[in-house]
Amino acid sequence: MSSIPTLRMTIGDFLLRRLGEAGIRHLFGVPGDYNLPLLQQLYDAGPLEWIGTTGELNASYAADGYARLNGLGALLVTNGVGALSAINGIGGSYSEHVPVICICGSIPLRSIDRGLGMHHTMADGTFDHFLDAYAPVTVARTRLTPRNAATEIDRLILTAWREKLPVYMELPSDIAYLDIEVPTAPLVLSEPPSDPERLRSCITAVAGRLAAATSPAILIDADADRFGVAPELMELADKLRAPVAVVNAAKAVIDETFPHYLGIYGGEASAPGVREAIEGSDCLLSIGYRPIEVTTGDFTAVLPAGTIQARGHSVDVGNDNYQAVTLKEVLRGVIDAVPSVASRAPRDAAPAMEGKQAYGSAKLSQAAYWQAIQSYLRPGDVLYVDNGTSFVLLGLKLPADCTFIGSINWGSIGYSVGALLGALTAAPHRRHLLFLGDGSFQVTAQELSTILRHDHKPVIFLINNGGYTIERGYLGKTESYNDVANWAYAALPKVLCPDTSARSFVVKTCGDLQDALRAPNDTMIFVESIMDSGDALAPVIVSSNKGAELDYGPRGPHRRDDVQLQPAAVD
Amino acid sequence: MSSIPTLRMTIGDFLLRRLGEAGIRHLFGVPGDYNLPLLQQLYDAGPLEWIGTTGELNASYAADGYARLNGLGALLVTNGVGALSAINGIGGSYSEHVPVICICGSIPLRSIDRGLGMHHTMADGTFDHFLDAYAPVTVARTRLTPRNAATEIDRLILTAWREKLPVYMELPSDIAYLDIEVPTAPLVLSEPPSDPERLRSCITAVAGRLAAATSPAILIDADADRFGVAPELMELADKLRAPVAVVNAAKAVIDETFPHYLGIYGGEASAPGVREAIEGSDCLLSIGYRPIEVTTGDFTAVLPAGTIQARGHSVDVGNDNYQAVTLKEVLRGVIDAVPSVASRAPRDAAPAMEGKQAYGSAKLSQAAYWQAIQSYLRPGDVLYVDNGTSFVLLGLKLPADCTFIGSINWGSIGYSVGALLGALTAAPHRRHLLFLGDGSFQVTAQELSTILRHDHKPVIFLINNGGYTIERGYLGKTESYNDVANWAYAALPKVLCPDTSARSFVVKTCGDLQDALRAPNDTMIFVESIMDSGDALAPVIVSSNKGAELDYGPRGPHRRDDVQLQPAAVD
Repeated sequence: MSSIPTLRMTIGDFLLRRLGEAGIRHLFGVPGDYNLPLLQQLYDAGPLEWIGTTGELNASYAADGYARLNGLGALLVTNGVGALSAINGIGGSYSEHVPVICICGSIPLRSIDRGLGMHHTMADGTFDHFLDAYAPVTVARTRLTPRNAATEIDRLILTAWREKLPVYMELPSDIAYLDIEVPTAPLVLSEPPSDPERLRSCITAVAGRLAAATSPAILIDADADRFGVAPELMELADKLRAPVAVVNAAKAVIDETFPHYLGIYGGEASAPGVREAIEGSDCLLSIGYRPIEVTTGDFTAVLPAGTIQARGHSVDVGNDNYQAVTLKEVLRGVIDAVPSVASRAPRDAAPAMEGKQAYGSAKLSQAAYWQAIQSYLRPGDVLYVDNGTSFVLLGLKLPADCTFIGSINWGSIGYSVGALLGALTAAPHRRHLLFLGDGSFQVTAQELSTILRHDHKPVIFLINNGGYTIERGYLGKTESYNDVANWAYAALPKVLCPDTSARSFVVKTCGDLQDALRAPNDTMIFVESIMDSGDALAPVIVSSNKGAELDYGPRGPHRRDDVQLQPAAVD
Repeated sequence: MSSIPTLRMTIGDFLLRRLGEAGIRHLFGVPGDYNLPLLQQLYDAGPLEWIGTTGELNASYAADGYARLNGLGALLVTNGVGALSAINGIGGSYSEHVPVICICGSIPLRSIDRGLGMHHTMADGTFDHFLDAYAPVTVARTRLTPRNAATEIDRLILTAWREKLPVYMELPSDIAYLDIEVPTAPLVLSEPPSDPERLRSCITAVAGRLAAATSPAILIDADADRFGVAPELMELADKLRAPVAVVNAAKAVIDETFPHYLGIYGGEASAPGVREAIEGSDCLLSIGYRPIEVTTGDFTAVLPAGTIQARGHSVDVGNDNYQAVTLKEVLRGVIDAVPSVASRAPRDAAPAMEGKQAYGSAKLSQAAYWQAIQSYLRPGDVLYVDNGTSFVLLGLKLPADCTFIGSINWGSIGYSVGALLGALTAAPHRRHLLFLGDGSFQVTAQELSTILRHDHKPVIFLINNGGYTIERGYLGKTESYNDVANWAYAALPKVLCPDTSARSFVVKTCGDLQDALRAPNDTMIFVESIMDSGDALAPVIVSSNKGAELDYGPRGPHRRDDVQLQPAAVD
């Protein structure tokens, strides 16, 4: 018998209450007959706001984008069709370590008990198909019942938050309005405390090595953001006078104006000077480092022997592995334990992008485009990159307090449009700048409609260059399979929201671009920039060329003559 | 040692050759770095045509629509992101029994062997996530290797074709250009022959019961189409003078001008007269019958005791179950074995939709709309229905030789737009009419772009009624969660294909609709009809009302006053 104070609530109301207590204020998704009861409870009770999307894939992207700024995100889908439509976004959240709660209003328990064929199912007498499909992309799953709802809802929310990974729960349509007994106390998002001895030993080991080093350095991957330890890392770097680099998946996790910030490390794809500092460090502290070909310059990254590998809940120091420690407690302890260093000079800050501004009637090139974008950035911007030539954004120098949202590892084209909706919802008063190409935009373009419907004011920088230019660097330099249809992109906001005040620009010259960049941010700005399909900055195309070698091997078709777009001299 | 003649081919070329031999002439999908080698082989060898789509979900819908007319369909996606984006369409193919081959250009074998983190993966050291995710939605899966490709490709294609279910294969990006030894002989799509004794016994049992019956009848589900036995069923019905009904998932599988065609059976949701004929039959032959709430009038269908249950590869007659028989062989044998009957009068053909034509300046209503559509239909049309108020199409009387494409059980909104692209590709010279609502259209609207790019000439009937009216019959009659943003739909073709000759109409009155229906079919016709959000014909809303009772049960919110759209009197 539990002595915890309880009260009676419906299962749906309890779920909504728990989401609210976890800091979730908006729910994305698409209505369907099986999820309407929960949606009605949301409307009746009002702790959350419903943001209907045009489809479930975009809802999953939106929940991911929301979670990036809010710490947790959630979406509501319907059985089978909705769950499977959202699964690619959930897979992305898994790959990118983003805690998202996918709630599926599912077929009624009575149909499961009776083995009835229902729409939105396989109608084959088996009812766990979608729980099974979600197993590879979630850290926890459940079908809620009146018996388990009071504990399973908490388990899934806490697991998502603690592991920084998505979870999936099915809420059968006939139980949302049934009463259960639930705890009176609010849900508290907290980590179990570290094991005291392990924590002390870990801090001693890490601090000892850092204090003894002559060239300590810190290398940061995305988990530093997910576990919220960027402030601790900057404090530690400042105390040690140690340089800090990030992998590209952690762009802007460390404020790029921070004096000890070096730039992006990625083996031979590193920013100038970064590789030496990281690979030459006699005590590298890495945070959540995951070697992936896209974050390691195609595996040319070589971390120094003895690198300290710190993760969300464990640390490797030499041959020792420390479990039952949390990253934040470790870092706080290390900060306290290391002596202040004053003797190491701060590194040079990473330089802003080089190149001359182009003006006037010159045809717009990628080089001129990104030079202009560099000048357009402002402190506090939220920047989004989609896969493609817009990866150049990774190389720009960001002002203070910027946030960078991308899907560097998962790399699902179209992600950024849905993520934009989500992050706009989480932080509507920041300036949001989306950078993407035509091929990516076409996947999820309709979500502009929802962004306009809620009167958000992002700036959307769309590169219209006739297709998948980044793929042309792998194979098919001029093959039509890399072409996409040519839309009148700039006309789309008006079609999706006929009474919008959005400003659309079709940019062909440098002067056109300057005109667009002068528009005030009091409404959506949509900038379609027309550039050549073979124009891309060298880092992007070099990366594609090398990726082809890795993907296709010695017998691959990329080794034929003139089948790959090659880097051109940058003007 | 095999004595089958062999030759050497690359794995990619062999896969493409097998697809061609299986009757597949088009491949849908989205390029990605991992699938470009196969795409290059397709371009170089040329047996198949590439139809690039804006996203993978639409590619899966297109492959499904293509397979409905062509017998098999295929799509090509990329690792992880592409595979998971397509999975909802593949789930639909599984649910609706459509043979689709999903080919995933996947990460190289070398990365799997070496355990390398790659983009488009979870980067967690495990490489079977997407094979696992596909397990619940496919009948067979594999990762191709140089050792297994020669046999696995055939196994998967044949399994899809024989079982009428989708399959999933991963083609690692570094093996498409490797040579293997493959059979010289072409792939033959054939069933293993029936077991002779089982076939004879089965035919004797079925024919004996049908011949002895005084009121035999035939009830047809979608598998009659998938296994291609509609001609045999009509021949049998003709010989027996037996009435034939279909469930709604098999609309138009039997030509609706066939003299013995009765109409749709669905328990209390049956067309007039059909229920009596089916439930009163003293020997009902059912083909592939799957009881699902949406095909059974919410389980009010009651088949007579002793119904013969024939499936693609087995038959139940009384207590006997016959395995190792194929449906076509059984039916051919039964046709030969039963005596011709001349004494039963043909049933009345199903009546065309009743109601008076409305003209002129009257505001367009659903009743007038569907009356006009009934008159617009022509022999040979391919008709598509998406979920929503367009379900009225199920009740229209179709002219001869029409094909009906829908997703009655799976019911994924937006399916029809992708399916339209696929079926247009398979049969470009037929007239294709798509019926859908605004909510469904918004999910997959961008695929219009591909349809226009290939200069197809469908007629698209879009109902702009402000949202998910079919859901309003479940719950949320006037709640905003059932609203969608109001697009300028008719302007979309011009935005997605600026030089299109498509004709767009915005229809508000009966006269507007008549004008639109007079447009010649020499280009795409896009008809946006504006109707009230609360306007829906009774069968659609009654079905929603009953669905809510089934979904939500006695404590559900739908029992409150005035929360459900109710059927209005039809004018």
